[in-house]
Amino acid sequence: MIRGDKVEDIYQYIEEHKDVYIQWLRELCQIPSVAAQNRGMQEAAHKVMSYIEEINGERQLVPTSGFPVIYGKINGNSPKTLSFYNHYDVQPEEPVDLWNYPPFEGVIDDGKMFARGVADNKGNLIARLAAVHAYQQVRNELPLTVKFIVEGEEEIGSIHLGEFSDNYPELVEADGCIWEFGYRNADGTQQVSLGVKGMAYVELVCRGANTDMHSANAVVIENPAWRLLWALNTIKDQYENVKIEGFYDEVLELSQEEKKAIQELVYSEEEMLSNLGLNSFLLGLEGDALKERLIFSPTCNICGITSGYTGEGSKTVLPSEARVKIDFRLVPNQDPHKIVSLLRKHLDKNGYQDIEIIQMGLEKPAKTPLKNPLAESIITITEQLTKKKPTVMPMSPGTGPMYEICQKFGIPSVSIGVGNFQSNNHAPNENIKVDDFIEGIKLIAAIMKDYAKR
Amino acid sequence: MIRGDKVEDIYQYIEEHKDVYIQWLRELCQIPSVAAQNRGMQEAAHKVMSYIEEINGERQLVPTSGFPVIYGKINGNSPKTLSFYNHYDVQPEEPVDLWNYPPFEGVIDDGKMFARGVADNKGNLIARLAAVHAYQQVRNELPLTVKFIVEGEEEIGSIHLGEFSDNYPELVEADGCIWEFGYRNADGTQQVSLGVKGMAYVELVCRGANTDMHSANAVVIENPAWRLLWALNTIKDQYENVKIEGFYDEVLELSQEEKKAIQELVYSEEEMLSNLGLNSFLLGLEGDALKERLIFSPTCNICGITSGYTGEGSKTVLPSEARVKIDFRLVPNQDPHKIVSLLRKHLDKNGYQDIEIIQMGLEKPAKTPLKNPLAESIITITEQLTKKKPTVMPMSPGTGPMYEICQKFGIPSVSIGVGNFQSNNHAPNENIKVDDFIEGIKLIAAIMKDYAKR
Repeated sequence: MIRGDKVEDIYQYIEEHKDVYIQWLRELCQIPSVAAQNRGMQEAAHKVMSYIEEINGERQLVPTSGFPVIYGKINGNSPKTLSFYNHYDVQPEEPVDLWNYPPFEGVIDDGKMFARGVADNKGNLIARLAAVHAYQQVRNELPLTVKFIVEGEEEIGSIHLGEFSDNYPELVEADGCIWEFGYRNADGTQQVSLGVKGMAYVELVCRGANTDMHSANAVVIENPAWRLLWALNTIKDQYENVKIEGFYDEVLELSQEEKKAIQELVYSEEEMLSNLGLNSFLLGLEGDALKERLIFSPTCNICGITSGYTGEGSKTVLPSEARVKIDFRLVPNQDPHKIVSLLRKHLDKNGYQDIEIIQMGLEKPAKTPLKNPLAESIITITEQLTKKKPTVMPMSPGTGPMYEICQKFGIPSVSIGVGNFQSNNHAPNENIKVDDFIEGIKLIAAIMKDYAKR
Repeated sequence: MIRGDKVEDIYQYIEEHKDVYIQWLRELCQIPSVAAQNRGMQEAAHKVMSYIEEINGERQLVPTSGFPVIYGKINGNSPKTLSFYNHYDVQPEEPVDLWNYPPFEGVIDDGKMFARGVADNKGNLIARLAAVHAYQQVRNELPLTVKFIVEGEEEIGSIHLGEFSDNYPELVEADGCIWEFGYRNADGTQQVSLGVKGMAYVELVCRGANTDMHSANAVVIENPAWRLLWALNTIKDQYENVKIEGFYDEVLELSQEEKKAIQELVYSEEEMLSNLGLNSFLLGLEGDALKERLIFSPTCNICGITSGYTGEGSKTVLPSEARVKIDFRLVPNQDPHKIVSLLRKHLDKNGYQDIEIIQMGLEKPAKTPLKNPLAESIITITEQLTKKKPTVMPMSPGTGPMYEICQKFGIPSVSIGVGNFQSNNHAPNENIKVDDFIEGIKLIAAIMKDYAKR
């Protein structure tokens, strides 16, 4: 922080009370709020409500057709409103045997807290609650109005968040929104990102005879695994081109600013390849071309494929069914509904009318312009506090319901958070560094003060 | 049987003692001899040995590197020797919940005995033992020398049977061999078949990064599922042509006799399609073209494919590995070792050097000429006993170790047995009709008598 701008007193309060905030985080992490398995969801929601009570927030547990959304609001002394989007649900902890620590205890070891959800996304949620708390304790009031929107279905596709924001647009209203996540690169620089990819998740089902058969019959009975595979082969070629007619039609060209941002983006190629045991990236890409693809290209990824006998050893079977799960990550302005409809047309045109498409999750991409007051505030404050210029990603390669909470209402949205490149989101031994968590609290406090004046 | 040829007395003995033979079969079926799971194998082997003792046979439990082969010999009063190839192992009974009867009790209901292995292959084994027994009881001696070769690894690819026949060629020696299986068509005609397809069973493994990843990375990290799929697409096209160079080189042309046999072959197309819920056979084939393909074409069948997340719902993952199990059914004179080596060359040539091939079972095809004394005897006797001309299949669409026991030593081999087109081999509710079993005993008794004189 710039000397004399008087945030050091808040920083000092945070340092002196960090054990309290670590305890808040540990307690939330001890609740196994796995939405996919409907475990601990009510308990986690009430815990988050209790923290909002702790910071004297107006609060509501807003019902949806699924898990409720927690809404909190704390008025400040300027007309500016900043919202925080977070979620209280986490991924399942499986495979449990690969964890070195119990996944729902919040053990601290070697400066890191380990827990399912600590990086995605409870660490960020608590850092934001703690920043408001510390600000209030030192200054008695906030420099701007703050809103919390904390959903319970992010890890299962935010299926009812659009319903929430359609029904309660006034709750969502804000001048800017700080998005749920953020990471540090291997070199310690902070990533700031300004958008998310969309998603069309589908399962394709190809059916053959009404029963598995002895594979001697494969000579005269069609095999749905082969048929599905030939169909898939028409969808994407070896050069990674998606061959669905119209798939790329709505993809926006990169602006000059975006191209510049790509050049400035730090992506640790060698570290990444070495960690993964690989010799090269897809299509041999490197440098700006690699980063541009990472940020601005849509994907067509096989998440899973199955047919027939997949156990140990051999079994001679002609399968009756084959299934593949595909996620298309989409970039602005691709529309997930349109993509699914183009896929249907493509399959039909290629003679695969019989292959069923099951829709499993559709999310729109979202992008915030690089030049906006919230991004400028976050970038400035991050550089001041961390003494390093943050890496600005015009979009995140990941997906989230940003459109439903922000772009649908013209609200700029920027992501910053307390994770790092080895946080193991969605994987065993998920963790954050405790120092990053404490610095993350300071960052939000300083951003509130700075953004209020922009 | 032709009147006056004096087999009626043996038939009568079989009718009068059929409960004994049904009990023999039930007791063998009650032993769950699943080779793949090493269950009940020793008990089943000793049970079979006890039946050979019952018919006063010289007998040996011949050790191999795997489960032992049971050898039995009963001398007869002519220089002719007829051998029977059977196996005492069965397929696993899974999925158990689809059985209407306990799979290892041998329940008789509505004229059928239900048990895992009753059709494949214990019914045939007991019918042959019973035929020898009845013959001895009525006539005191056999019209020819009989050998039993009963292995314990047929359902896991007969992996040590070649070792057995190489080590003990004198045990295998015979003028003709009756092979393990045989079925009745929907119209009640008996199938007689004269060969088996070979097999090259392989698993292909394609590896990507050393860990599953969040699928946002799919935009820059290669997906091994896609890579495997593109590789598979080079192996077989939509017209079912195997595109491996040299794959068809050793396939023999059909002889005039074989073409004639195809024309005469009964294949219940409509019944088959209706049972399977299908509108047509592969490539729209029907009639002679369909039957020719069934009998004389090799296959390249996907038995199983798996990669990534295949459970309920959606998970956004970039898999680290993809696997496919393929069985190539081979026809004379394709050689399974050569086919695997051609597959390796094909993958290398197409840029898939990294895809690993795991060999899981190699068996050579085998064919017996249509004109041979054993086939003539079996066809004649079957027509006399069943009052219907049997369907002669120049080859079976299935696979077995016929080469190792017969063709390697120039022994003609013909298949006939007590199953039917709804016996559910390898599937839940495996069964045979009790009447077919009793008639099968008579058939073998009459064949022994007839073949002795040819």
